Amino acid sequence: MSLDVDALLSELTLEEKASLTSGSSFWYTAPVERLGIPKIMVSDGPHGLRAQPGEGDHVGLGGSLPATCFPTASAIASTWNSDLLRRVGEALAQEARAANLSVILGPGINMKRSPLCGRNFEYFSEDPYLAGELGVGIVEGIQSRGVGTSVKHYAANNQETDRLRVDTQVDERTLREIYLPAFERIVKTCQPWTIMCSYNKVNGLSASENPWLLTTVLREEFGFAGLVVSDWGAVYHRVPAARAGLDLEMPPNLPRSPDQVVAAVRAGELDEQVLDARARAVLELVDKGMGVLDLDEEFDAERNHALARAAAAESVVLLKNDDRILPLASGSRIAVIGEFARTPRFQGAGSSQVNPTKVENALDELRAAFGDVTFAAGYGIGDTSADEALRAEAVDVAAAADTVVMLIGLPGADESEGFDRTHMKLPANQIAALHAVGAANRKVVVALVNGSTVELGEVLPHARGVIEAWLGGQAAGGAIADVLSGKVNPSGRLAESVPHRLEDNSSYLNFPGDSRVVRYGEGLFIGYRGYDATHTDVAFPFGFGLSYTTFATSDLDVAVSGSVAAGDLAARVTVTVSNIGPVAGAEVVQVYVRDVEASVARPVRELKGFAKVALEPGESRQVAVDLDQRAFSFWSELLGKWVVEAGDFSIEVGRHSRDLPLTRTVAVDAPSIAPPLTADSTLHEWMADEQGLALIKEAVAAGQHDPTRDAELVSVIGTMPMSTLAAFEGMSIDHDTLDKLVERRHAH
Amino acid sequence: MSLDVDALLSELTLEEKASLTSGSSFWYTAPVERLGIPKIMVSDGPHGLRAQPGEGDHVGLGGSLPATCFPTASAIASTWNSDLLRRVGEALAQEARAANLSVILGPGINMKRSPLCGRNFEYFSEDPYLAGELGVGIVEGIQSRGVGTSVKHYAANNQETDRLRVDTQVDERTLREIYLPAFERIVKTCQPWTIMCSYNKVNGLSASENPWLLTTVLREEFGFAGLVVSDWGAVYHRVPAARAGLDLEMPPNLPRSPDQVVAAVRAGELDEQVLDARARAVLELVDKGMGVLDLDEEFDAERNHALARAAAAESVVLLKNDDRILPLASGSRIAVIGEFARTPRFQGAGSSQVNPTKVENALDELRAAFGDVTFAAGYGIGDTSADEALRAEAVDVAAAADTVVMLIGLPGADESEGFDRTHMKLPANQIAALHAVGAANRKVVVALVNGSTVELGEVLPHARGVIEAWLGGQAAGGAIADVLSGKVNPSGRLAESVPHRLEDNSSYLNFPGDSRVVRYGEGLFIGYRGYDATHTDVAFPFGFGLSYTTFATSDLDVAVSGSVAAGDLAARVTVTVSNIGPVAGAEVVQVYVRDVEASVARPVRELKGFAKVALEPGESRQVAVDLDQRAFSFWSELLGKWVVEAGDFSIEVGRHSRDLPLTRTVAVDAPSIAPPLTADSTLHEWMADEQGLALIKEAVAAGQHDPTRDAELVSVIGTMPMSTLAAFEGMSIDHDTLDKLVERRHAH
Repeated sequence: MSLDVDALLSELTLEEKASLTSGSSFWYTAPVERLGIPKIMVSDGPHGLRAQPGEGDHVGLGGSLPATCFPTASAIASTWNSDLLRRVGEALAQEARAANLSVILGPGINMKRSPLCGRNFEYFSEDPYLAGELGVGIVEGIQSRGVGTSVKHYAANNQETDRLRVDTQVDERTLREIYLPAFERIVKTCQPWTIMCSYNKVNGLSASENPWLLTTVLREEFGFAGLVVSDWGAVYHRVPAARAGLDLEMPPNLPRSPDQVVAAVRAGELDEQVLDARARAVLELVDKGMGVLDLDEEFDAERNHALARAAAAESVVLLKNDDRILPLASGSRIAVIGEFARTPRFQGAGSSQVNPTKVENALDELRAAFGDVTFAAGYGIGDTSADEALRAEAVDVAAAADTVVMLIGLPGADESEGFDRTHMKLPANQIAALHAVGAANRKVVVALVNGSTVELGEVLPHARGVIEAWLGGQAAGGAIADVLSGKVNPSGRLAESVPHRLEDNSSYLNFPGDSRVVRYGEGLFIGYRGYDATHTDVAFPFGFGLSYTTFATSDLDVAVSGSVAAGDLAARVTVTVSNIGPVAGAEVVQVYVRDVEASVARPVRELKGFAKVALEPGESRQVAVDLDQRAFSFWSELLGKWVVEAGDFSIEVGRHSRDLPLTRTVAVDAPSIAPPLTADSTLHEWMADEQGLALIKEAVAAGQHDPTRDAELVSVIGTMPMSTLAAFEGMSIDHDTLDKLVERRHAH
Repeated sequence: MSLDVDALLSELTLEEKASLTSGSSFWYTAPVERLGIPKIMVSDGPHGLRAQPGEGDHVGLGGSLPATCFPTASAIASTWNSDLLRRVGEALAQEARAANLSVILGPGINMKRSPLCGRNFEYFSEDPYLAGELGVGIVEGIQSRGVGTSVKHYAANNQETDRLRVDTQVDERTLREIYLPAFERIVKTCQPWTIMCSYNKVNGLSASENPWLLTTVLREEFGFAGLVVSDWGAVYHRVPAARAGLDLEMPPNLPRSPDQVVAAVRAGELDEQVLDARARAVLELVDKGMGVLDLDEEFDAERNHALARAAAAESVVLLKNDDRILPLASGSRIAVIGEFARTPRFQGAGSSQVNPTKVENALDELRAAFGDVTFAAGYGIGDTSADEALRAEAVDVAAAADTVVMLIGLPGADESEGFDRTHMKLPANQIAALHAVGAANRKVVVALVNGSTVELGEVLPHARGVIEAWLGGQAAGGAIADVLSGKVNPSGRLAESVPHRLEDNSSYLNFPGDSRVVRYGEGLFIGYRGYDATHTDVAFPFGFGLSYTTFATSDLDVAVSGSVAAGDLAARVTVTVSNIGPVAGAEVVQVYVRDVEASVARPVRELKGFAKVALEPGESRQVAVDLDQRAFSFWSELLGKWVVEAGDFSIEVGRHSRDLPLTRTVAVDAPSIAPPLTADSTLHEWMADEQGLALIKEAVAAGQHDPTRDAELVSVIGTMPMSTLAAFEGMSIDHDTLDKLVERRHAH
């Protein structure tokens, strides 16, 4: 069964086309029954379905059908494993098919500009390359099973504060290099069925009404062929949105929006061809999505739960393991402390909140792994009235144990869609409990349960081992047990830096803005790009993660091919990775590129490739990572395009962004990116150009004064454009002479 | 003798008026001989005249008549003494009158956004209040003697890199609160004869062509009644500049510019009334300035030199004085080390460079103060080829002395108009010499000679005493001797913070920009506002400075008067200052205001008043500092005006920006600054309004669902505008109901 889109388009009335560009209810597109066009269902969300039965409640945040809650994005991003995301995507699609659901509203791939963004748990990374690679995995996984995705939130939506009105003021280069590349990568690689535009304005214009974003960049430059849907309620002016490239408004604003569209077409304010393009996008989506409508499939809840557990375990990042306290020795007396062990927090709140098929807690799972462990709550979550007694009990339990496993983290009220955090500290009562427990027992292992990064200065000195378990989904409890017991050797790597202090983050002075404006004052320098640029020490750098085994990386080779002139510069980076430790494990080889000298400010280094390699003890493998021309490029504001600047590039390979022992310098040849000399070029610029300098000297040969010969003078006036100097008496180069110089320079 | 401006204007031909709006040569306005309009001379610069004989050389940077070189701006700003600046201004005017010079092209009052700005030595401070107060002093001093000033560079010109083309991208609030207030203060207080517009663009439009800057803000809002002159070469499009409010183009671009003006008037592209206003401004300036033309006065070079020495001594900031090593005991064997002691650096390069009447060096002056001191150069300046031998000699000399005075600082090539520094380190050879000397003698006193701040991490551990002597003008050598000998008790206070590292400065990621753009990404948070906001430790905070005596400050009282509603809120801050130490000295009482809670981001605290008090040993005095309403205000981007927000303000008084032991909290009442509720106001905003909440509850009484009752839901959807929620089915408030709510809310 499929739709003949061309034929249908010609048969649809104006009203029907307008109707198609709005939904029919909260989660459904609009059907046109007379022509056999069905409605299809879309639904949250990225780490598990939130399919509401019926037409959806008032604001779409009520109960939903049971579904597997996979690890949240901040967790699963730490796997640095696109294949795993692909498998999770396939499982999500299986569940969608079982619910006759056509489009899953995810993944969320926005950059983590600030650790405070309330929705960081739904996003992958502070790095656009990593977010793009992971996004490709999950989109390919979902779409390979005939279910659509909605890559969100496009664009520059990196906070919750005033998110429907805030104007993100950000320069184009920063958009091109930081906030758009993950979208670009996914669109170019796997054509998501839909892109969801964000609520915010971008440089003065709402994303939903922004033709530069929705048409120029997304469709014309990236080649997007799918449908643009609004975030729920992100359309502020229906007709300008249609004009800008917004296909589908959700939820429907009925009858207002279709009426406005019809009226605009009738009044000649909206070209009917534009409406046709919007309706066509909807029809094409329905055509693809209707494949699931009549299915009578079920999903394998047990199998998906097992996948969720494996994914959660691979998401765990081992941050600290002094004296190899982990994995925990079996047979020792283990105390489990922390209310989170009994009352797990495994996902965030808002549109991504899943009604899980079942939930594991860490306490039960640690009991399953280690036998009869003792337990104390240690602190309350939210209600802290009994804390003193809980703390005393925890101290007693800790003192009687060989080793303590303590879960601490962020209460659900601290992070959610809809608002941002105002600090990145753990709750004081949990810290107090940890300090008390740490004083009673020196062998404390902390498992962190949080969606966004937290300051660890009060944690690290009080724990011999620390794992970052994130919000790991419904099987997080089992995953924690698997890692602590050594059943799984942790292979997670941080997809975001953990600063010592919030104030160290480069967005600090400009987050979340006020007066309906947020300025991205730090420009390109978010995440590790900021910490590296300012040489700021961090608690844990981007890419960091320990293992129970030891890896050695050697024999870096970089084979360059192609050329910038031909547009096909590429480099194959190969290294040999060896597992020289006692147990099987996986290493993430990370490849960063540094532009050694550039005419514009560039990040110190940027992730441009990685590979995750599983190795048995004693096993070695050669790993290849390919870099394309983009890996060397920056967006030139002067030229309005991607450019590679000739010169040395350093290829840096290692375990994380601040441990890159293998480096190779590559000299890249490229056409000049200097703008042509004009009258507005400066004396410095003319003097830096061999022919330009010769022309000046020739022009002043007959005159009295050669300005280029006085170094001290040039240091003061060198930044003056020639056209300015031409007005200075006695400079020997008047306006007419200058015009001739420019002409002669370009005759060369 | 004076001009009848109205009569002349009516007699001038179009060509003559156009001619008046350009100069006639590098330093002269255009005369109109037929009407008896003379030409007047203008000349650099702010800390000493740079009057070139004749018509000026090719680019105006050649030799000039001897003049007293007073301390540079960064030095004299450290006096925090507006009266001293007034006396210096009077002396400058005396020298101008002797040269028949009508307008002195200064002071430079730009903010020190980055320590790297090449022209920082010509600017006062990182704080707009302090720069404004000091600027008022020197402008009043000069103009009180019938000589004009040119307050520069207007505006947002805070770097040298690409200064003629760079576009300063800065938000209006930051302009209003940081970059414009010093201009505003000087204009409103003492009407400088001229304002000099800067070379750069401001938000896309050259300062010289920027009607918002030159007309809306400067004339209409600040009430400027004088003439706007271009920086030399800052006019890029003559007619738009005239239209925007630029009166006089310098140097003249002849015959091009007057021809363009004439043609534009003839073509109807420039209203002749606009040209009349420009010509009027020139005539009024000539009228004021011609008073000096026929004078036959001389200036008192000895008296002015003595003033320069007193000013330089008061400019010195005592940074460190362990074990009270300073003042130096007389009779001890003193070694003077450092080429700078023999070859003084006392001013910067570029348009401010003065041909001094005489120059003192520190070595001679220390010999005069202490008798026969020993000397070693220790290092070379620029030429470092002999450094090893010089260092060895210095070690020998140091080892043989009781105490070492070592001068180190920045070579002239490191800081100048025309380019910016790329780091803030002292030369490695000087540091090496200091370390060698410090190893040979534990009693080292360092005198720093530099125009911009330098990193001191390699200096402080190697010196028991440190003075910052800046570029102190021609008498700097004597001033250093006066302070080290105790003849002058240092009373300087830092007018700019000294960070530990350049990277700690908030502009670091955005200085100096590239691709012809600099983004002021740090917004308001320059200087101490940045270090305070990020809780960043500094080497020496804004306002810091030690003394040879000890002060106690007590009995803070704050008397509030007036009201925000009436626009006359004010506070008189009084404290008692006592000199409880052994010698006479001067304390600078500093008053900062902190807005305890605000609806917008505000600096932690801001300097809003200060008073310098000279006290004999044992003397006490009550000091009053007055705060006006502006001291409590911020510029509201939402309302487009200065506002005071109701709530607590903390008045903080002390010795420097991080030593404010006396505080008083003041509760300020003020009208609400919340915008009126509309359909675009968020659910949160409606719920925060008592009447708004009641209206919502009333509206949904008959409906099924009251969204305001579900706290978790509100936390997610609270940032949604009511108009967005109205489109959500089941929200009980549709568009029509909402329209009625808005109407009823405003009927209240």
